[in-house]
Parts: sequence; structure tokens; C-alpha cells
Amino acid sequence: MDKQLLIECHRRIKPFIHHTPVLTSRLIDEMVGAPLFFKCENFQRMGAFKMRGAANAIMQLSEKQKQNGVVTHSSGNFAQALSLAAHSLGVKAYIVMPHSAPQVKKNAVRGYGGQIIECEPTLEARELASKQIEEKYGATFIHPSNDTTVILGQGTACKELLESHPNLDYVVAPVGGGGLIAGTALAAHYFGNQCKTIGGEPFEADDAYRSLQSGQIERNSTANTIADGLKTQLGDRNFPIIQKHVEEIIRVTEKEIVSAMRLIWERLKIVCEPSSAVALAAVLKTKEKFTQKKVGILISGGNVDLDHLPF
Amino acid sequence: MDKQLLIECHRRIKPFIHHTPVLTSRLIDEMVGAPLFFKCENFQRMGAFKMRGAANAIMQLSEKQKQNGVVTHSSGNFAQALSLAAHSLGVKAYIVMPHSAPQVKKNAVRGYGGQIIECEPTLEARELASKQIEEKYGATFIHPSNDTTVILGQGTACKELLESHPNLDYVVAPVGGGGLIAGTALAAHYFGNQCKTIGGEPFEADDAYRSLQSGQIERNSTANTIADGLKTQLGDRNFPIIQKHVEEIIRVTEKEIVSAMRLIWERLKIVCEPSSAVALAAVLKTKEKFTQKKVGILISGGNVDLDHLPF
Repeated sequence: MDKQLLIECHRRIKPFIHHTPVLTSRLIDEMVGAPLFFKCENFQRMGAFKMRGAANAIMQLSEKQKQNGVVTHSSGNFAQALSLAAHSLGVKAYIVMPHSAPQVKKNAVRGYGGQIIECEPTLEARELASKQIEEKYGATFIHPSNDTTVILGQGTACKELLESHPNLDYVVAPVGGGGLIAGTALAAHYFGNQCKTIGGEPFEADDAYRSLQSGQIERNSTANTIADGLKTQLGDRNFPIIQKHVEEIIRVTEKEIVSAMRLIWERLKIVCEPSSAVALAAVLKTKEKFTQKKVGILISGGNVDLDHLPF
Repeated sequence: MDKQLLIECHRRIKPFIHHTPVLTSRLIDEMVGAPLFFKCENFQRMGAFKMRGAANAIMQLSEKQKQNGVVTHSSGNFAQALSLAAHSLGVKAYIVMPHSAPQVKKNAVRGYGGQIIECEPTLEARELASKQIEEKYGATFIHPSNDTTVILGQGTACKELLESHPNLDYVVAPVGGGGLIAGTALAAHYFGNQCKTIGGEPFEADDAYRSLQSGQIERNSTANTIADGLKTQLGDRNFPIIQKHVEEIIRVTEKEIVSAMRLIWERLKIVCEPSSAVALAAVLKTKEKFTQKKVGILISGGNVDLDHLPF
């Protein structure tokens, strides 16, 4: 994957995404001992970076494929992202969701124009339902994170960050399914000035940390974390990129995640997801590493349920 | 008060304030039937527009006055604003606060360099304590809202908003002590293109609404509102400006305030105070008035206690 692909991807999706702002906080800088630059993808359309990858994936389809629609299985932000991106591009989106998914998430997908197909809450049932949609409508399956076009799309957030702040020493992103961290690492590699990529991950879902240790894709046996966007595992498309370009993955406790999330809300005055706070939590935990360095932080999204906050 | 004073004030305080961003939400626009432009003073230094007025008030003092420091009585944002503005300008700030004020607010004032003088939680005790500081140290008393230099400072938020969005038909701000709404109305008058100023006020603290009706400054007998920044009453410096330049004050219920606050958090992904949500609540309540109009909304601040959210 080369630099030109990322440049073309960014040009392609620009009309369909927001150029999100970068925020700073003097107090947080003092706490860390380094200037931090928060790339606020919580202000992205539908509230998360996933809009970028979804838009790119759909735009890369042939006209015939577009006519038949796209399908994914997700109960999280990618479901909303694919629905909105498809709607914006005049393409039909089928979203396979467990019937147990919260009503608010179903409403959000429908609000963005996605058609929900409910299934049992198991991975097997989701995959079967997706297959059936592919066969019935000729729809193209788009994976939320293990898809090259999706990875490139997610990388455009870091590309924008480096365009406005070219001399970052580090960029730190949360690690879930691996799409964001892989795209970020590619962008840092191609557009940074010796900029290193670091991942933040909950101890409770540290499959990526263990995968880098063992050299093969590891699974989470449990994933009892508040960072609900990070429960998924890496895939064969993003893992090699992560192996090659990510310097380190730093693991954090649930308490550290909530504390970092609170700091972001209180000091940056923005609403972010627990998953987003994992990157700042990792920096706060290992702040000696970052002293006097310029650090970019990916705030991945802002879709939280205000009725169930951890504080 | 003329246009030139506002221009000079803005030039004076610029090095000490943030130029805050303007955010929008397609969904909220659809709900109202009009494009809304949210001027985000929750991103202002210390988290509220009050930084503007505090900075201007101190900068207008003589060198001798600056040497002797400033004093105010407030347990809210103005206490923090005066502390930080004074600190930034190398001036001593004495803040009279009731000893019953929340520890978090006392910590914030101290964190910004203010010296707290505790007193009994009555207006009489506050005024007495302030007088004593004035006499003891020769400090200059600065009123949070009924002070011409403060009013001008607060007006610079609307001035910035109109510089980036010159054709607003309306600008809507919450009404508390009257400093923000008076400054906003002046800025709309001098820098707008036929831009009208409207105030939002809780039914539970509708002194300004009643004051405009009766033609004299009315008091709140009770002020049982979640919008704790709006419990104060107008003063003789800001009331004449409000009478002359504010078209209307729209009152909203507590339920409407919480609902608007939630909408701002969920859709704009920002943390704002209940007081800030009163302006949007007023627009949502009377949306026929605003159909197809361009409407500016002053988000006044973002200092909330995350342990005591209304949702």
C-alpha cells in the first residue's frame, strides 16, 4: 500500500466527510509534560471516524455493485457509518444486527437510512445472515475493520492531523478491530516526520497486545471493558500493517479509561466515547515516554448513551 | 456606548482569550427548520464567556489600581474568570465566596490563582466582605455583570460570531445577570445586518422577562432552576441596553432546558452548562418564529459537575 493510495482516498471521500478540528488543553499538557493535539473525530459525521472508511469502501465499488447495495454486521458505529455513507451515495445498506441490540442503536441506523436485518446474538448467526443478504440481493459485504479500503479511509484522520501539525513525534490511537490503528500507522509513516504510532488498548481486551507478542492474531476470551468499541479482534488485512508500523501497544485498566474520559469531558468540554479515552489513558500512564514530545491523540468518536455514563 | 468601544475592547483582550469555534448540526437544523450557528464559549479559557469581560475590566484599570488587585463576589464562572484573567495580567484577585460553595468551585478558583475569602451564604455578608477587601487592600470591585467594561467584553463573543457569519437574522443568548445579553445586543446592533437579539430565560428565574414588562428591574423571589448561572438579576448598567436592543425574552421550563441540553451533548458532542441550553430551548419552543432564518446561539459555558448531571 503506498502513499498515493492514501492521497487519492482522501481526495475521494472529502465531499462526504467533515474536516474535524484539533483541540488542546493547557492543563492536560501540564499533567503529561508534553503538548497534546486531540484530533476530534467525535465531531465527524455520525459521530465517529468510521464514516471515513465506510465512504471510501462504497466509493471503490463498481456501478453494478453499488446498484446491489452493501451489507455489514455490526451493532456499533460502523453500522451507522455504512448506513449514512451509503445513503449519501445513493446506495442501499443492509445492516445485520442482533435482535438484542439497544433500540437507540437500531433507531440510529434507521435514521441514517440503513435497513436492519435482525438475527440471534452470535457471530455465527450474524455471518449467516450476512451471507444470505449477499446471495439474495447480490450485496457486497464490507467488513468494519479488516478491509483495505476501510483501513485507508480511517487513515485520513491522521493524514489531516499531520497536515495541520506536521511535526508530531507520536500519534496515539485506540485499538479495536485494527482498522483505525492500521490506517493511522500508514498515514504517520507516509505523512509524518519520523512520527511513531502507538496503540492504546484495555487490559480487558488486549488481543492486539498479545498478537504483537505472539506474531499471530489472538482472540479475546472475555472482553469485559467499558470501551465497547474495542472488543473486536484484528484481521489478516490490518495485522501485517500493525506489525510493521506500530511501535507499541500500551494497555490500560478500566479505572484509567474512565479517569481519562472524565478528563477529556471536563477539560476539553467534548463528549467522547470510552473507547476514545483509551489513547489518552495510555499516554497518562506512560508519560515519561512522552515528555516534551509533540503527541497527536485520535479521539475516535462521541456516540455515548447519556443514560449510562460511568460517572 | 458606541461601536468603536467594542472594536477597541476586542483588540485589547484578544491575546488573553480564545477565538472560539462555531459548530452546526444538520439534525438540529431539521428539528427547528432553520440553520443554527452555535458559538461555543464552552471552549473559552476557563470554560465560559466570562473570561472576556473579566479580562477587559482588569485591562481598563489604572496601573495603581492593578497593583492593588481586584475583588468580586461570585461562586460561579465569574470567580474563575476574574482569577484567571487577573493571573494572566499579573494582578491579584480576591474572590469572596460563601463557605458553603462546593469544594470543586473553590479548587477551580485557587487553581487559577485567585485568593478566596469565605463568608456566610447571604448577599449582605458577601457585600460586606467585598467592602472590607476594598478598604483593606485598596482593591477595585468588579461586578460580574453590571459593569460597562464587563458588558463590552462579553459582547465580543457575538462580534466574533457575526464576523464569521455576517448575515444572521437572530442571535439568541441566555439571560442571567444581564452582562452577556446586553453585550450581545450591542454587538448585534453594531456589527449585524439587521440582526435581532433574543434572550432565553427559565420560567423559574424570569426576572428579566418581568423587568421588560414592568419597565423596572424586578427580582426573583425564588430561583429553583437547574440553570444555576441564570439566578441573578439585572442591574442599572445593563438594563437600559437590554430595554433598547433586546427584541424579546422567551421563557422555558426546566424540562425544556434539560431536553435542549441533552440534544446539544448528543448531537454537537460538546459539554455545555444547563444555562447554555436555555437559548436553544427558547428557539425549539418558538420555532415558527425562526423558520428559514439564520440563527446564532450563544453556548455560554461548559463548567458542569459530571457527578450531578440531569440525565
